[in-house]
Amino acid sequence: MAPPESPKEHPAMTPAPRYLTGKKEEIKEFLDKFDVFLFDCDGVLWSGDHLFPGTVETLEMLRSNGKQVVFVTNNSTKSRADYKKKLEKLGIPSTTEEIFSSSYSASIYISRILKLPENKRKVFVIGETGIEQELQTENVPFIGGTDPAYRREVRPDDYKLIAAGDPSLLDPEVGVVLVGLDFHLNYLKLALAFHYIKRGAVFLATNIDSTLPNSGTLFPGAGSMSAPLIMMLGQEPVSLGKPNQAMMDAIEGKFKFDRSRTCMVGDRANTDIRFGLEGKLGGTLGVLTGVSSKEDFLAGPIRPSVYLDKLSDLLEAK
Amino acid sequence: MAPPESPKEHPAMTPAPRYLTGKKEEIKEFLDKFDVFLFDCDGVLWSGDHLFPGTVETLEMLRSNGKQVVFVTNNSTKSRADYKKKLEKLGIPSTTEEIFSSSYSASIYISRILKLPENKRKVFVIGETGIEQELQTENVPFIGGTDPAYRREVRPDDYKLIAAGDPSLLDPEVGVVLVGLDFHLNYLKLALAFHYIKRGAVFLATNIDSTLPNSGTLFPGAGSMSAPLIMMLGQEPVSLGKPNQAMMDAIEGKFKFDRSRTCMVGDRANTDIRFGLEGKLGGTLGVLTGVSSKEDFLAGPIRPSVYLDKLSDLLEAK
Repeated sequence: MAPPESPKEHPAMTPAPRYLTGKKEEIKEFLDKFDVFLFDCDGVLWSGDHLFPGTVETLEMLRSNGKQVVFVTNNSTKSRADYKKKLEKLGIPSTTEEIFSSSYSASIYISRILKLPENKRKVFVIGETGIEQELQTENVPFIGGTDPAYRREVRPDDYKLIAAGDPSLLDPEVGVVLVGLDFHLNYLKLALAFHYIKRGAVFLATNIDSTLPNSGTLFPGAGSMSAPLIMMLGQEPVSLGKPNQAMMDAIEGKFKFDRSRTCMVGDRANTDIRFGLEGKLGGTLGVLTGVSSKEDFLAGPIRPSVYLDKLSDLLEAK
Repeated sequence: MAPPESPKEHPAMTPAPRYLTGKKEEIKEFLDKFDVFLFDCDGVLWSGDHLFPGTVETLEMLRSNGKQVVFVTNNSTKSRADYKKKLEKLGIPSTTEEIFSSSYSASIYISRILKLPENKRKVFVIGETGIEQELQTENVPFIGGTDPAYRREVRPDDYKLIAAGDPSLLDPEVGVVLVGLDFHLNYLKLALAFHYIKRGAVFLATNIDSTLPNSGTLFPGAGSMSAPLIMMLGQEPVSLGKPNQAMMDAIEGKFKFDRSRTCMVGDRANTDIRFGLEGKLGGTLGVLTGVSSKEDFLAGPIRPSVYLDKLSDLLEAK
């Protein structure tokens, strides 16, 4: 296990959290403090393809009490529409408007927050269709992505053309490089991304999770796509996923919520809970159905305000 | 420019180097101290495709005075035989025996230094033909590399097969992952390399240069191929290229030289000169025809014992 991080690095460190499982009145009191609940998904609502019992009822209880529910995911390969399908397949009713993915977060950041010059509005995408769909939603022009023209070997001529900044390979209107999970990453895409950034493009990542869970083990994640560029450039991307606050700003930009009446729910102290704490939300709720343990929540450097054995323990407040 | 490194990090820091250009007697005296000269190539003997005037004559002068000449290169895409062709094309007579590349260094390290169990001798290669040829020279079995079977998209089935350790994808005899520059890097290769290392394979890199010079600019280098794995694993590879001393050990293993009578010649303080200093060679010679400047050599934290404007200044000792 990695050594615990120094508390000094986390000025937002909080006192030990309260344990609410089985405490009906305390749960009621806690829920009353919030209008909005931001949900991490895997490890909170389900695990892999297994929906946790009580997930649907808990979300329904919150909604029927007038709470806004938002599903916050770092998954950049799916658009919100795709993610809605995934939720439905698992049996969770939802609307596209309730879903906030890192690809959507990145698209909002590019279209509404970055002030790009008129002639530098194109995005060079390393990633899959989820990113492309969300960029289209925000009317952001892009190249790269799933375009088959980029799924080829690097050719001897490419080096000279790239070195010369030839517009057949380096589009002069590109002002942003956006890197997400790309199952078709290759040498050409990395070379082009590197040169765009060297020529002044903004370096963005949908998220920087180094690994991606699948089939009970780990595979290369979006962060692994950025890693070669980080090493070559000596520069980190701005990440639009949890726990980066650019994502919180984007969520706030959309939902216009009162942070003091918003609660982040998650299973991971160092991403979900940290995301809520650094976003100065009114509360954070940890659940023990995912990555972090009771010990992590009680004695770790990053602690939720309350924690439960499982999300559906909230149903005791009904 | 990057801030100078702290001298504290380099216990091998030496006093300011002597400048030998134009000093015939001092050059003679310096050459007399060595039997072996290790040469970095690009920036010392040539630049790109341009051979420096006097390179051939200088090498000839050293050889005719009984000096052993060794060309030391981090280029892993070429075998020694390929590299000899490159030297010949530039007009430099050489023998394969005089060439020491990082792919050869890695092959020697695997075959002669690593003590692999009988059933764990296969190498999973991320890289091009140069690595394969040198592994063959040392009779090291390998998979991956330029095999077209690995140049494909990841398929939905792959995740489950990899998670289950299925031998159709994860060869149980693989005990080493060797990562060099691979113009055909893809998601499948990264996923397999990650799982081999997680299952206990030794993580090696031919070299960790993040970039590769070409056409007067930079492209992704061998280190960029290792970067995703380093991020996923939280583990650095053992590098068999300069300035790592595993390469010096491999060179010594082959040439059986007396380190005190060996001199490293290079244009880069932080790789070539550092390589010689940390290898406790008798001397280091910096030249000003490449990356490092006079100021780097005189006032930097890593200083050669002597320096010249250009390599051919040694000819004054004829």
